[in-house]
Amino acid sequence: MNSSPPSDAITLPGFEDAEAAARRLAGKAVRTPLLESPLLNDQLGCRLLIKAEPLQRTGSFKFRGAYNAVSQLDDEARRRGVVAYSSGNHAQGVAAASAMLDVPAVIVMPSDAPAIKLANTRAWGAEVVTYDRTGEDRQAICEALARERGAAIIRPYDDRHVIAGQATVGLEIAAQCEDLGIEPDSVVVPCGGGGLSSGIAIALRRLAPKAKIWTAEPEGYDDTARSLAAGRRIGIDATPPSIVDALLAPMPGEMTFEILRDTVAGGLAVDESAVERAMAAAFAHFKLVVEPGGAVAVASVLERKLDYRPGATIVCVCSGGNVDPALFADILRRNPA
Amino acid sequence: MNSSPPSDAITLPGFEDAEAAARRLAGKAVRTPLLESPLLNDQLGCRLLIKAEPLQRTGSFKFRGAYNAVSQLDDEARRRGVVAYSSGNHAQGVAAASAMLDVPAVIVMPSDAPAIKLANTRAWGAEVVTYDRTGEDRQAICEALARERGAAIIRPYDDRHVIAGQATVGLEIAAQCEDLGIEPDSVVVPCGGGGLSSGIAIALRRLAPKAKIWTAEPEGYDDTARSLAAGRRIGIDATPPSIVDALLAPMPGEMTFEILRDTVAGGLAVDESAVERAMAAAFAHFKLVVEPGGAVAVASVLERKLDYRPGATIVCVCSGGNVDPALFADILRRNPA
Repeated sequence: MNSSPPSDAITLPGFEDAEAAARRLAGKAVRTPLLESPLLNDQLGCRLLIKAEPLQRTGSFKFRGAYNAVSQLDDEARRRGVVAYSSGNHAQGVAAASAMLDVPAVIVMPSDAPAIKLANTRAWGAEVVTYDRTGEDRQAICEALARERGAAIIRPYDDRHVIAGQATVGLEIAAQCEDLGIEPDSVVVPCGGGGLSSGIAIALRRLAPKAKIWTAEPEGYDDTARSLAAGRRIGIDATPPSIVDALLAPMPGEMTFEILRDTVAGGLAVDESAVERAMAAAFAHFKLVVEPGGAVAVASVLERKLDYRPGATIVCVCSGGNVDPALFADILRRNPA
Repeated sequence: MNSSPPSDAITLPGFEDAEAAARRLAGKAVRTPLLESPLLNDQLGCRLLIKAEPLQRTGSFKFRGAYNAVSQLDDEARRRGVVAYSSGNHAQGVAAASAMLDVPAVIVMPSDAPAIKLANTRAWGAEVVTYDRTGEDRQAICEALARERGAAIIRPYDDRHVIAGQATVGLEIAAQCEDLGIEPDSVVVPCGGGGLSSGIAIALRRLAPKAKIWTAEPEGYDDTARSLAAGRRIGIDATPPSIVDALLAPMPGEMTFEILRDTVAGGLAVDESAVERAMAAAFAHFKLVVEPGGAVAVASVLERKLDYRPGATIVCVCSGGNVDPALFADILRRNPA
């Protein structure tokens, strides 16, 4: 057991941390399936495999990193509890992991987060503190709460235990591709702060070194693509609210970017209409509910933002499925088959 | 290899047929996950596990039985091709299995089948012949086509190879429950002609003999529930079109009922509004697209049509996810969280 809160750690996570996370998560997280549609493959001229994280506990990959982090707190730290800030998926992940480990949790969430994310975070027993996304500094609120209560902050991405937990998605992709007898040419990963993509990169540079890893972002929030192109972290200006609520981080994380810079082929960006079409395609072909932020990787393939050769094998991570039913219904209506 | 078309077989399938089907389907069918939502479990006061067949190839369990049947045709029969009648899921299953095995397929479908089912059946390369569900006899059309072309009929449920293929759902449920260290108290299965429920019964009476198996049907189409109560096959009168298009068989099959009569605890029935609520719950809690007919088992638990004790372990099969986006959007709108 580590006696310091995970967020105090400063060294980058490695492959062994991913493997240790997989052992902690065994029987706790869902080993999500890799889905495939021969009809869609024919249309696209490639072999597209979908890593279906909407089927993960709490409806997104975030549970993995949260559980890996919270489970490493010592008894004293568990008693004092945890604090996290999140647009909603990390919130639910931390809330669920804390509930399973009997740790009190306070989550700082934007007041305009999807209702389903706010409701589920509360349903897991966490205390929710809302803030105004345009005017208040969530990190400052979070740090004040942590000081007040002596609680550990579970950061959404710049935390080695969180990154190692998300890396288990990469371990599973590698194992599932091996079961299918295939080597992916490209792996495309939705990217907000970079926790999922950097974690997957840690796993795949060891297990599938030939696969090119790409981040996918919404246009206007493509700070990672710009940072990768520049070779240094670049922030973006405040941008309007977007349906792609899970990916609105304004700058790559420090730790995550240090990993991404050395492992990722490049950053892709798609517009909101492409995201909607990808959600409709996931509905029709995979029977999977994918939230806007979870659909950007699939969108980048459907829109040929990823330049692939005919017959290429491409893995796209669908990172989450927590979307309000009214929005989902609107998107299906706007995007008939 | 069996040289006669599978539909000529007359003996009931047994456990060994299910195991043989599983070997034929290995690497061809998806081993669909068992999904669970701790938040929904809390609300229901039971442990509910969902067997997610919308994630199956072609979006429903029907691929299993179809592939098991078509793959057993000899070379000469494969050249002459197959004919099937179906409201849409068996159609896609036979079309996909035939495409994979390079067998020509003609499918007789009602003209009012969901557009997604008609389109996908054609996309798999099958020839589609439509008929008027209220005025024409699909079986007669199918038999005439089979005579004309010398083609084998792949029946939707009264066929031992088809039932044995569907039984692989039961084999997987048993294995997945064992992995989780649980014994289900009840297993609830959507029921049209009874192929899926009778197949699952064959598997579970051997592997989970303590589990009670229940069929679930739409009210008004509850011919199996009535037949089970009477101890003999009872047909129902022609009833109006329903969103539950997959389950409109007017009478249990001969073979399937002979199995169900000896293995099933009883038949449950739910109305359309309960089906819609179950679809909305599957969207919210499992991120799974379930079609109306696929949701009747979950509906029977949510509506307490299944009388379960607190803490019971219940497996519900979600049998398919082929629903038109406009209908799905309407249902989400009518059933907000």
